[in-house]
Amino acid sequence: MFDIELAKKASNNLKTLRGKNPLIHNITNFVVMNYTANALLACGASPVMAHAAEEVEEMVSFAGALVLNIGTLTPPWIDSMLKAGKRANELNIPVVLDPVGSGATKLRTTSAKRLIDELDIGVVRGNASEVLSLAHEDSLTKGVDAVHSVDEAADAAIQLARELDTTIAITGEVDLVTYGGRILMVHNGHPLMGSVTGTGCTATAIIGAFLAVDREPVVATTTALAYFGLAGEKGAIDAKGPGSFQMAILDALYTIDEKQMEEGVRIQS
Amino acid sequence: MFDIELAKKASNNLKTLRGKNPLIHNITNFVVMNYTANALLACGASPVMAHAAEEVEEMVSFAGALVLNIGTLTPPWIDSMLKAGKRANELNIPVVLDPVGSGATKLRTTSAKRLIDELDIGVVRGNASEVLSLAHEDSLTKGVDAVHSVDEAADAAIQLARELDTTIAITGEVDLVTYGGRILMVHNGHPLMGSVTGTGCTATAIIGAFLAVDREPVVATTTALAYFGLAGEKGAIDAKGPGSFQMAILDALYTIDEKQMEEGVRIQS
Amino acid sequence: MFDIELAKKASNNLKTLRGKNPLIHNITNFVVMNYTANALLACGASPVMAHAAEEVEEMVSFAGALVLNIGTLTPPWIDSMLKAGKRANELNIPVVLDPVGSGATKLRTTSAKRLIDELDIGVVRGNASEVLSLAHEDSLTKGVDAVHSVDEAADAAIQLARELDTTIAITGEVDLVTYGGRILMVHNGHPLMGSVTGTGCTATAIIGAFLAVDREPVVATTTALAYFGLAGEKGAIDAKGPGSFQMAILDALYTIDEKQMEEGVRIQS
Repeated sequence: MFDIELAKKASNNLKTLRGKNPLIHNITNFVVMNYTANALLACGASPVMAHAAEEVEEMVSFAGALVLNIGTLTPPWIDSMLKAGKRANELNIPVVLDPVGSGATKLRTTSAKRLIDELDIGVVRGNASEVLSLAHEDSLTKGVDAVHSVDEAADAAIQLARELDTTIAITGEVDLVTYGGRILMVHNGHPLMGSVTGTGCTATAIIGAFLAVDREPVVATTTALAYFGLAGEKGAIDAKGPGSFQMAILDALYTIDEKQMEEGVRIQS
Repeated sequence: MFDIELAKKASNNLKTLRGKNPLIHNITNFVVMNYTANALLACGASPVMAHAAEEVEEMVSFAGALVLNIGTLTPPWIDSMLKAGKRANELNIPVVLDPVGSGATKLRTTSAKRLIDELDIGVVRGNASEVLSLAHEDSLTKGVDAVHSVDEAADAAIQLARELDTTIAITGEVDLVTYGGRILMVHNGHPLMGSVTGTGCTATAIIGAFLAVDREPVVATTTALAYFGLAGEKGAIDAKGPGSFQMAILDALYTIDEKQMEEGVRIQS
Repeated sequence: MFDIELAKKASNNLKTLRGKNPLIHNITNFVVMNYTANALLACGASPVMAHAAEEVEEMVSFAGALVLNIGTLTPPWIDSMLKAGKRANELNIPVVLDPVGSGATKLRTTSAKRLIDELDIGVVRGNASEVLSLAHEDSLTKGVDAVHSVDEAADAAIQLARELDTTIAITGEVDLVTYGGRILMVHNGHPLMGSVTGTGCTATAIIGAFLAVDREPVVATTTALAYFGLAGEKGAIDAKGPGSFQMAILDALYTIDEKQMEEGVRIQS
């Protein structure tokens, strides 16, 4: 039922990531900066957060991937994202976008669409509502949490991925990853992940880390999501609630070994 | 000795909160953004952090409450707080203010007073020094920590609550909540909470969540503070220090059930 | 082999810190604000984060030390650092600088050098690459992580400390502290500290706290680094990975007593 080759690939990507320690340049929101930096370190990547217009082009040039996240955006941050993204595109460095709260306010929807229009984005990861908002003008998002199911968003995602020629990932109970009509489903994860802030943002950052070592976006994305979901499953075992769980996810990201990866990821292709 | 009706109300508010998952819009400081978002999630609320002048009016219109916190303020943030607060007032959405460090610098005292003057604030929560600074020009605050006892501040709080026609909460060893001459005391809490940064800010955010489901500010505030204090008591049981305690509070916010609430809160009316 | 007098001094500094609870004013990066605030509280200090140009001079005047950290800098933040630093210098309040990522981008290198030029900085703490970048134009830093060993940087540090008449600390497997030709080595610490974001920044903040109670910079710096390293050793005992470790360090900072300090610190003079 689950794809054995992709499970092997997931394990291999993690091994490569830990061997190469690529720099991941994040222009992200204030809420998750600490947690995603720690998650990236736990994965084996080397995170840097830098948003000044004066340095983003220089910083991204050292990076294995650029992660853009509009969670606490203001217009100057979007300008820096565009600057960094254009330089990344020139240098063929993969870019991943997290359109946090797109659909909730005009600023967020417009900014997300502008980033997609002006940059060559390799992967967009959001919840169902956020992804729908990129496709439809009249979509509704409640704050930054999803009000649409993955199923509702699936068709829109497939079409959007075709139109934009990009990989789209919708995360939820089951994660859906699509590009060029191809659809993969990731069955890893744990319900308690929804009670920790920034798990979506962290998934996006880890996709960035996997993109730095695997240039096939669909594969990098599905294996990254499976790894993060597996860390959630492992972290939940001894967690007493969302606080201890938050830290247990980091522990699991760090301790999951290649064998556990290969045996634990559940990707449906 | 303790008010049984308010204990029942506390339990009921928590139940309603978990059923409704109201969006809580926070314009808050950088230090506590992650922790308060996690605390709100653990309570059952849906947090969003958004501060851009371009989107705060739109974002707050979806919210059950608006939480304003001046912990790392700069003038543009105050402008956004005013914008969001005015829109919240128009829509009859409750607003809670945390005047972090008011009294320590002119910028903080002036900003806190301006927010109180220009907005209809439902609840102000601070430590004794912060609240005193709103009443007296010559009050002294040391950084963001209290240098006055709750007792010293109580009379000033009662008078200030009358003058401003708002609910004032002073948190400390015992929390004091006052409005229109009425005084309630919350006896929940744990001394170790003072060794975790942003516990005051988190209390304020949880007051926001309770205001979203209970429009009587004095009751929402006392029941929220009792709940948070109870989570502190429960979290402290197995904590080995302020690090594990910080996470144990989140676990407790999430796991406290309605029966534990009703039996555990200690509100004196 | 290890300096017994400095071990006693370390223990004494911690005792004084816990007795005096000095206010430590931080102008620092978004990634570590929460963690360093919690670390300072766990040490016994009273942290405040404040960066508005309108208030930094007033805020720093209450402080026992000023901590400057360029981790997520933009030009207005550097202006605030200069303002606060000049006022601190006037008031003889010690200033410590963390040149995060200096060497990685022109903005960071230039900003770090400008702070050093225009302010009287008591202590500079960085990794080997960051410190080398302050000495050499052509030094290379990868993001914010060190690509040079402490040994490579030692000679440069000694010379730089002489030139700038400041104490330089290079942290790594062994920490090196130098001033006026004098060299001290701190052998405390744990490898897992490199897997938690902001441990360098936290070391710098704790140096600030020790400077507030010990005006001899070399001694304040070595004893602070030994204390933080010891907390890392203690925290690692039961840690299951970098997540639980991050919190265990805070627990250890809080629970280490004077006797454990005196027996545990390993400073080579």
